[in-house]
Amino acid sequence: MRAFMDKDFLLQSDTAKTLYHEHAAKMPIIDYHCHINPQEIMENVRFENITRAWLGGDHYKWRQMRTVGVSEEFITGNAPDREKFQKFCETMPLLIGNPIYHWSHLELRRYFDCDLVINGENAEAIWTLTGEKLKQDSFRARGIIAQSNVKAIGTTDDPVDDLEWHRALLEDPTNDVIVAPTMRPDKAINIDKPGFAAYIAKLADVSDVNIGTVEKLKAALLTRIALFDALGCRASDHGLGYVTYRRGDARMVEDIFQKGLAGEAVTEAEAEIFKTELMLFFGGEFARLGWVMQIHYGAQRNCNTAMLERLGPDTGFDAISTRDSGEAIVGFLDALAKTGRLPKTVLYSLNPNDNALLGTIIGCYQGDGVGKMQHGSAWWFNDTKRGMEEQMLMLASLGALGTFIGMLTDSRSFLSYPRHEYFRRILCNLIGDLVENGEYPWDKKALGALVEDISYRNAVRYFGFDLPL
Amino acid sequence: MRAFMDKDFLLQSDTAKTLYHEHAAKMPIIDYHCHINPQEIMENVRFENITRAWLGGDHYKWRQMRTVGVSEEFITGNAPDREKFQKFCETMPLLIGNPIYHWSHLELRRYFDCDLVINGENAEAIWTLTGEKLKQDSFRARGIIAQSNVKAIGTTDDPVDDLEWHRALLEDPTNDVIVAPTMRPDKAINIDKPGFAAYIAKLADVSDVNIGTVEKLKAALLTRIALFDALGCRASDHGLGYVTYRRGDARMVEDIFQKGLAGEAVTEAEAEIFKTELMLFFGGEFARLGWVMQIHYGAQRNCNTAMLERLGPDTGFDAISTRDSGEAIVGFLDALAKTGRLPKTVLYSLNPNDNALLGTIIGCYQGDGVGKMQHGSAWWFNDTKRGMEEQMLMLASLGALGTFIGMLTDSRSFLSYPRHEYFRRILCNLIGDLVENGEYPWDKKALGALVEDISYRNAVRYFGFDLPL
Amino acid sequence: MRAFMDKDFLLQSDTAKTLYHEHAAKMPIIDYHCHINPQEIMENVRFENITRAWLGGDHYKWRQMRTVGVSEEFITGNAPDREKFQKFCETMPLLIGNPIYHWSHLELRRYFDCDLVINGENAEAIWTLTGEKLKQDSFRARGIIAQSNVKAIGTTDDPVDDLEWHRALLEDPTNDVIVAPTMRPDKAINIDKPGFAAYIAKLADVSDVNIGTVEKLKAALLTRIALFDALGCRASDHGLGYVTYRRGDARMVEDIFQKGLAGEAVTEAEAEIFKTELMLFFGGEFARLGWVMQIHYGAQRNCNTAMLERLGPDTGFDAISTRDSGEAIVGFLDALAKTGRLPKTVLYSLNPNDNALLGTIIGCYQGDGVGKMQHGSAWWFNDTKRGMEEQMLMLASLGALGTFIGMLTDSRSFLSYPRHEYFRRILCNLIGDLVENGEYPWDKKALGALVEDISYRNAVRYFGFDLPL
Repeated sequence: MRAFMDKDFLLQSDTAKTLYHEHAAKMPIIDYHCHINPQEIMENVRFENITRAWLGGDHYKWRQMRTVGVSEEFITGNAPDREKFQKFCETMPLLIGNPIYHWSHLELRRYFDCDLVINGENAEAIWTLTGEKLKQDSFRARGIIAQSNVKAIGTTDDPVDDLEWHRALLEDPTNDVIVAPTMRPDKAINIDKPGFAAYIAKLADVSDVNIGTVEKLKAALLTRIALFDALGCRASDHGLGYVTYRRGDARMVEDIFQKGLAGEAVTEAEAEIFKTELMLFFGGEFARLGWVMQIHYGAQRNCNTAMLERLGPDTGFDAISTRDSGEAIVGFLDALAKTGRLPKTVLYSLNPNDNALLGTIIGCYQGDGVGKMQHGSAWWFNDTKRGMEEQMLMLASLGALGTFIGMLTDSRSFLSYPRHEYFRRILCNLIGDLVENGEYPWDKKALGALVEDISYRNAVRYFGFDLPL
Repeated sequence: MRAFMDKDFLLQSDTAKTLYHEHAAKMPIIDYHCHINPQEIMENVRFENITRAWLGGDHYKWRQMRTVGVSEEFITGNAPDREKFQKFCETMPLLIGNPIYHWSHLELRRYFDCDLVINGENAEAIWTLTGEKLKQDSFRARGIIAQSNVKAIGTTDDPVDDLEWHRALLEDPTNDVIVAPTMRPDKAINIDKPGFAAYIAKLADVSDVNIGTVEKLKAALLTRIALFDALGCRASDHGLGYVTYRRGDARMVEDIFQKGLAGEAVTEAEAEIFKTELMLFFGGEFARLGWVMQIHYGAQRNCNTAMLERLGPDTGFDAISTRDSGEAIVGFLDALAKTGRLPKTVLYSLNPNDNALLGTIIGCYQGDGVGKMQHGSAWWFNDTKRGMEEQMLMLASLGALGTFIGMLTDSRSFLSYPRHEYFRRILCNLIGDLVENGEYPWDKKALGALVEDISYRNAVRYFGFDLPL
Repeated sequence: MRAFMDKDFLLQSDTAKTLYHEHAAKMPIIDYHCHINPQEIMENVRFENITRAWLGGDHYKWRQMRTVGVSEEFITGNAPDREKFQKFCETMPLLIGNPIYHWSHLELRRYFDCDLVINGENAEAIWTLTGEKLKQDSFRARGIIAQSNVKAIGTTDDPVDDLEWHRALLEDPTNDVIVAPTMRPDKAINIDKPGFAAYIAKLADVSDVNIGTVEKLKAALLTRIALFDALGCRASDHGLGYVTYRRGDARMVEDIFQKGLAGEAVTEAEAEIFKTELMLFFGGEFARLGWVMQIHYGAQRNCNTAMLERLGPDTGFDAISTRDSGEAIVGFLDALAKTGRLPKTVLYSLNPNDNALLGTIIGCYQGDGVGKMQHGSAWWFNDTKRGMEEQMLMLASLGALGTFIGMLTDSRSFLSYPRHEYFRRILCNLIGDLVENGEYPWDKKALGALVEDISYRNAVRYFGFDLPL
C-alpha cells in the first residue's frame, strides 16, 4: 500500500517519479486563465481564517456540503466561521475519489506544512494551525503567489472594466508577476439576457462611442480591445451555453440589435444570429492582434431557480449541457478560417463526451504555428484525476500531446495553485505508463523536455508572455 | 494468474479483500427495485428445473443466444427444457467479458455449491446437480430470499393493482422480509400509447372515481397512492423513453386529456405536455409522503416489430436511446424545487454517456437530508463490471460516493441476488485501489463503515425501511 | 520498464503473450475493408522511396504534421521527398500516445527490419535503409501482401466501375490473394450533393438502362450489383454523415428523384426520404445475395473550406459528427427486418460515444446465423489502442465477443497490415487481463481458438470467402 499522498502521490512508476520530480515539479506556473481579482493582488489581501480562504466563494465545496446534508446556514449562511469549517471537515471523509479531497489536502500540505487528514476530529487542530500561518505575510496574496512559483496570471475581465488594478500592478515596482487581463465580452453578446441594453449603455459610456448601430458597437469594442492589448492582454474568454453558428445578413443583424437596444425580447434564432456575428468579429480582431480566443461552452447555468433567487449566480447550481454544438463549432471556425481571420483558439467543453469531437475538430484547422488550435485542459466538473486523464489520452490519441499548453486553475482562490501540481503528477504518470509499457522509448532528456514544455514552456510561447524559456 | 472466480474474485488488492470480506459481504441485502412477482413470494414457488429458473423470462440471456446463432425454438420456443439448457451452456464460452458469464457462474457457486465451468460439456452435470437442489425447500422462493440475506424487496406495481399479495405477505406471520410495493404509473401518463383510455377506465373502476377530467384523474391516483402508502410503499418508479418538460396551461392539459379519453391521437408535443403535468403532480405528492421518485429513462423499446408481434414486449429487443434529456431533466426538477415539491429522486439513464450529466444535475438540487438526489446504480445494459465502475467513478468525481444508496437487481429472477455481491466486490475493489494508490488514507474502521453504508445502511435510511442499522 | 516495442509489445501478461504468439500471430489476414487500388495490385507497383510509401495520400500523418507547425509545402506541397521525410521524422516525437507513432514503428520493424526510433536525427539513416529495401521485388505491392500473409482484400468500388482490375486479378494465374470488390454506392444516393445528375447519367451509360424513374434507377443498380456479385463481391459499404430513416410514398420519392435528375436543389427532408428509399432497396438486395452491408456514419467531412478548395477532399480536414442517429438506425433496421430483407450488417460510428448504442442495437436484430449483426471495429479516429479497447470492452459487455469479425485496415497503404498485428496484440492483452484477473477460466485450447476466430476465421465465415478454416 502506498502512503496517503506522500511525495510520490499519483506517480505509479519510476519513470513517472523521475519525470515529475526532476522535471515537471521544477517548472514555474503559468496560470493563464483564472478568476482571481487583480485588486486583491494589488492590495495584497490577507485571509482572516481558513474558512474565508477555503470556503468563501468556493461553490465546488458548497455543493458537496449540501450533498451530505449540511444546512445552508453553515455553507453560505451566517453560522460562525469555525462552525462552517467544522461542517466542511465532517463532509470530507464522504468525498472519497473527489478532487476536492485531494486539492484540500494538497493545499494543507504545501502551504501549511500540515499532513493531518481532514475530518471532524482534526478540524480544531487544522483551524488553529492554519490560523497561525495565515497571520504571516507570506500568506498574503503576493506571498502565496510567490511561494507557488507563479510567473503569469491571466485574470477574467469585462470589456467595460477600466483595468485600473492591472495598470497599478504594471506600475508597481514591487510586483514581479505578470497579471494579464483577459477580455470576457459575454455581456456584449448576450442579447437574450436581461440587462443587455443597460450594458451597452455602460459600454458606450466607457468607450465614449455613441452605440446606435452594430457598426458602432464594434467600434466601441475595438477601443476596449485596444485598451486591453495595451495593458498586456493576450487572450479572450467566452462562456457560451452552446456554440452557435447562424448567419444573418447585415440588415437582419442590425434589426436584432435594435430590438436588444430597445430592451425587446429576441427569439432564440435571432439571438444566435447576433451572437454569431459578434463572435466572428471578435475572432477576426483577436487573430489580428495575435490573441488567443478561449471558448468555454456546454454549461446549463442556474438550474435551481429558488436558490438563484436566494444566493445569486455562481453558488453551485450549474450542470453540464448536453446540447450538441458539433456542427456549429465547425461552421464558426470554418467561417473564420476561410476569411483568414482564425485566431489561436482553445476549445473547452463542459460535456466530457465532446473530448473526441474537439480532438478531431482542432485537427481541421491546424497549420499556422505550433499547436494553433488547442483542446483545452479538463474544465470545471471535468477537472478531476479521471477527467484530466481522459482529456490527455484523447488528445494524445488524436493529436500531438507534445504541443499541449497544459493546465490552468480557472479558480477564484489564491490557494488553488497545487492543482498545477496535481495535473503535472497525472501528466507524468500517464507518460510514465506509456514508457514503462514499451509504447514510447525511454529518453530522459527528450521526455523531461516534453513534460517541461507541457508544464510551462508551451503556454509561455502560445500566449507570448515575456518570460524565460 | 488468479484462479477463476475464487473467493477473491474481482478483489485485486489486500485493502479490497479486507473491505469486502470483513465488511461488505456481511451486510444484508436491500433490493429496493426489482420486478419480482409478490405472488410468487407469497406462494413460495418452486422451480421445476434450471432452465425455468435461469431462462424463463430472462431476455438478457435470450439476446446472447440469438447473437451466437441459436434458433428461437431453443430460446422462447417449444424445445424441451434440457435442450434449451444445452444451447445456453454452449453459448456461454463466447460471452467472455459479459456480465451474464459472471452472474451465471456466481449463481451456480453460491446457490448450488457447484464450481463447474458452464459450457456444452458440463451442461449435463449442471442440469442434474441443479435439478436435485431445486427439489429442496430451501430453493423455493422464500428459501432463496432467506439464504441470500435479503431484508427488503421493492417490487414494481401498477396503480390499478390492488396489492393483494403485498397485503397477504404483511399479514403472513411466517414472512419476515419486507416486500414493499413500488408505484409504477407509466400507463397513466402514456397518453400516446394504445390502451390509454381503457387503462383510465380501469383506474376509474378500482378507485371508484368517475374520471372525466384531469382533476378527477389526479383524485383517482391519490386514492391509489394512499393505498400504496398504507401497504408500505416507499417509492415510485417511472419508465420514460426520454424525460419531457413541456408546460401547458390547465385548459391545454384538459383538452389533451379529453383527446386521450376519447381514444384520439395526440401529437408528440401534446403527449409531452400531458406527461409533464402528471409527473409534476406525482413529484409533489411523493415529496409530501416522503417517497423516493425513481426515474428510469433512455430506452428505445420494441425495436424489432416482427419479433414484438411474435413474442410481445420485454423479450430482448430493446436498445439505448441517445435522445437528449439534459434540459428537460433540469426543467422538471427545477419546477418541483421552486414550488417546494421536489421529492427524494433517483435518476437512472440507460445511456452511459449521461453519467456526467446526471452527476452534475443531482448536485443542483441537494440540500435537504443526506444524498437527497441520487445518481442511480448502473442500469440494465450498463449493469456490467465496466458500467458499475464508470458510474461509481463519475459519482465519486462529481459528488459524495459515501452517500450512495448502492445496488438493486432490477431483476425478475429469485436467483439474481449475487449481483449485489458482484457490485460490492467492484465497489470494494475501486475503494481499495484508491487507498492502495495513496489517494485516500487507510482507516479500517472508517472505510469498513463506508462500504457497509453503501452496501446496506444508506438504502435503509433513504427509503426509510424499518430495519436495524 | 519494458523495452520499447519489443516482441511482447502491448502484451502485459503471460496469458496475453501465449495467446498472441502461439495463436493470433499465426493467423492469416483478412483485410475485408480497405481503400487499396486494385490496379496497383495488378500492376504490382513499386514505391520510389519511403516518403511516397508513407506520406503519399496518408492524411492521418498530414494532420499531425500541420499540428506541430510544419508548413504545407512539406506536407502536400512541392518540397523534395527527402525534406518532407525529415519534417515527418521531426514531428514524430511529439506524437507520444498517438497510433501513428506505433504504426510507423511497427512498419519500420516488420517490413524494413529496422528498429531505429523515428526522429529528426535518425531520418537520414531510415531514408537510406528503406530506400535500399524498396528497390527489392518483395517490396512491390504483391510482395508486401505476400509477406504480410494477407489472404483476402476487400477494396472499395463505385457501382459505375467496370471492375477491370478485379477481373484481371481473377484471371491472373500468378495472383493467389482474393481481391474482392465492395460496392460503395454513395454517389447514387447523395441527391443533395453536386454532380448527382451527372453521376446518374454515367450509371445509365455503364448499365445501359435509361434512368428516367426511380424504378429504372433500381434496375440500373441491379445490373451493377449482378456484375459485382459475379466478380466476387461479398459486401457493400456506405459512408453516411448520419443515418436517415424518413419514409415517403412512391410518388414523393419519384418527385424528389426528378428534382435531382434535373439538377434542382432538394431539401434536407427530401434528401433523407430519397436516401432512405435507396438504402432500403440496397439492404433488401444484399440480403438476397448474402452480402454484408457495412455502414460507416458519423463524419463531418471537409470542415475547412479554404483547404478543400486548395487540396480537395480526403486531405485531413474531417471531424467527428455528433448528430444523433440512434432512432434512425433502429427505424431503418426494423423496416428491413419486418419485411424479411435485413442483410448481415456491420455498423461503424465515427462517434465513440455511440459504442453503447450500437452494442445494444445489434442485439435487437440477431438471430439468423452467428453474429449476423456486428459492431464494427474501431474506425478511423477511433482506430487507436484506446479506441479498440473501448469498442471491444463494450462489445464484450453487451454482446458475444467470441463472434466478432475483428480488424480491417480501412487504409490506402500497402504497408498498413501491421495494424492487424496491433489489433491482435490489444485483443490478446484484453483477454489475457480477463483471464489473469480470474474473470474467465484459463483453457489454452479454447482461448487460443477464440482469438484465432476473431483474428481470422470469423471474418472468413461471415463474408463467405473460399479459404481454409
